[in-house]
Amino acid sequence: MKTRIGILGYGNLGKGTEIAVAAAEDMELAVVFTRRDPATVKILTDGVPVVKADEMAAWADKIDVLILCGGSATDLPVQTPQCAALFNVIDSFDTHARIPEHFANVDQAAKENGHVAMISVGWDPGLFSLNRVYANAILPDGKDYTFWGKGVSQGHSDAVRRIPGVKNAKQYTIPVEKALEAVRNGEDPELTTRDKHLRECFVVLQDGADAAAVEKQIKEMPNYFADYNTIVHFIDEDEFKANHSGMAHGGFVFRSGKTGINKENKHIIEYRLTLDSNPEFTTSVLVAYARAVKRMYDEGQRGCKTVLDVPPAYLCTQSGDELRAHFL
Amino acid sequence: MKTRIGILGYGNLGKGTEIAVAAAEDMELAVVFTRRDPATVKILTDGVPVVKADEMAAWADKIDVLILCGGSATDLPVQTPQCAALFNVIDSFDTHARIPEHFANVDQAAKENGHVAMISVGWDPGLFSLNRVYANAILPDGKDYTFWGKGVSQGHSDAVRRIPGVKNAKQYTIPVEKALEAVRNGEDPELTTRDKHLRECFVVLQDGADAAAVEKQIKEMPNYFADYNTIVHFIDEDEFKANHSGMAHGGFVFRSGKTGINKENKHIIEYRLTLDSNPEFTTSVLVAYARAVKRMYDEGQRGCKTVLDVPPAYLCTQSGDELRAHFL
Repeated sequence: MKTRIGILGYGNLGKGTEIAVAAAEDMELAVVFTRRDPATVKILTDGVPVVKADEMAAWADKIDVLILCGGSATDLPVQTPQCAALFNVIDSFDTHARIPEHFANVDQAAKENGHVAMISVGWDPGLFSLNRVYANAILPDGKDYTFWGKGVSQGHSDAVRRIPGVKNAKQYTIPVEKALEAVRNGEDPELTTRDKHLRECFVVLQDGADAAAVEKQIKEMPNYFADYNTIVHFIDEDEFKANHSGMAHGGFVFRSGKTGINKENKHIIEYRLTLDSNPEFTTSVLVAYARAVKRMYDEGQRGCKTVLDVPPAYLCTQSGDELRAHFL
Repeated sequence: MKTRIGILGYGNLGKGTEIAVAAAEDMELAVVFTRRDPATVKILTDGVPVVKADEMAAWADKIDVLILCGGSATDLPVQTPQCAALFNVIDSFDTHARIPEHFANVDQAAKENGHVAMISVGWDPGLFSLNRVYANAILPDGKDYTFWGKGVSQGHSDAVRRIPGVKNAKQYTIPVEKALEAVRNGEDPELTTRDKHLRECFVVLQDGADAAAVEKQIKEMPNYFADYNTIVHFIDEDEFKANHSGMAHGGFVFRSGKTGINKENKHIIEYRLTLDSNPEFTTSVLVAYARAVKRMYDEGQRGCKTVLDVPPAYLCTQSGDELRAHFL
């Protein structure tokens, strides 16, 4: 029997999850829950109901894992504990600083109601976290580096759009090649914020806006841009639509560590992602871990879990024998 | 109480294990077993006994995990099942084709005697296997590439040394930069053996040997060199000792996969290791997984395991709370 998946929220993540579930031979999409009027939500899969989120409780026995596709700022802190009372769930909560609090809330709800609830699954947190943990366990004496990009920062794009005179804007975070090379060469550099990432903005102005004033406001904006080297391009709406509607992203996790009697040997571990679609890759990770949620639930595990708790084999459709023969 | 570690075999891997155990605050070296005369084996750690391998059985209750540091060709197929009858064990068995057979033998011995026995731990098999499994689970529609080097191949160095007229030789396996770039750019190239790796040999000749004849024999050697582009350098003994006694190695694991309704989005996952000392890095991995062996044993797990069965958190000294707060 296939694992029955539910989706809550049908934006970019919801759609990505739907596509990834369709590509998984051991899963089937059972239902999409939405806070919108279901009649206005057109999904890609034929024959799957779109249901008002209020009516989720009626589905408690009809799905094996609910994949939460809301945002980390306001949706998931409320939704994940609520839904963990009804279902096994998985989310991509990515506010690093609030993970311990989110974990505690979700853990309580999941344990009280006998479910498995996995949080913070994606690539950062998620695959990047895995790489930090593996690399730190293997090289206890070392230095960590994480770089993001090239990719769109939604928060920084929003900040630019709020400047008077700006009609539309996209901000790319770009790792500085020189810094990457220094880390890769084992130089263990001390890197400031400015050394690590560039910020590049593509801005469409409103008619009559003062380009120089906008550029100054961007570059001097505290927290968002003041500590970085920032490049600002002014473009027209057509170019914006043609070249800046993608959702590419990626990044790098490095650990540089030493071994030997006199710490004379250096080792560099590098993990790199280059992603055409941030939401589709994130949901591909979510769907693989939804498989693990089902398996851990079937084994009798309960409570909140993260990627750090999951044996890699649990992400796979293949048996242990197959994995050892073909992948080990 | 610290985890008590035993080592069987005191070559490069044994010494690397000793150094990694000394760097682990939660472990202590209890004993080194050797097949040599213990009086001839001088280890780095004060106060730790070196004991004849025949006398291992007397140590059954005195160590928590035995780390096997023998070779895959003849030592481990015999030693790992034997030792799994006495101890929890871990090895770095790396003959990929024989892993299923080794697993079955070790699993039986470990289960019959109530131990956990982990096999094939290191970087390939090991960390590279993990990356192949994670990446395949996340991107089911894609292509895998593994490259090795730049690093010394012991087997190829031995093959060159067996040629008449050769006094000493070292062979480096080198990934072809053009092939790496094509994979990294998402071109999904079809690569032949020759496309992926170069072989570079540094050879010291015996007095009066015919360099041209030796070079021809190397380049035409079936299986080892005939299918590759091979570069041969003749050097003298002093240069050999000065520049070719290192044990650096490394490599790359890539997966290139597609997502999207029309498979229109490409994603590249790259994992790269650059290692000054192959044995010291391998044993750093072994020691981290020895921590997991102890934890799985304490939980009541039994039988043969691989890296695919281990939750990443089990490699760490930190608690779940600490890991979530600092690494997730």
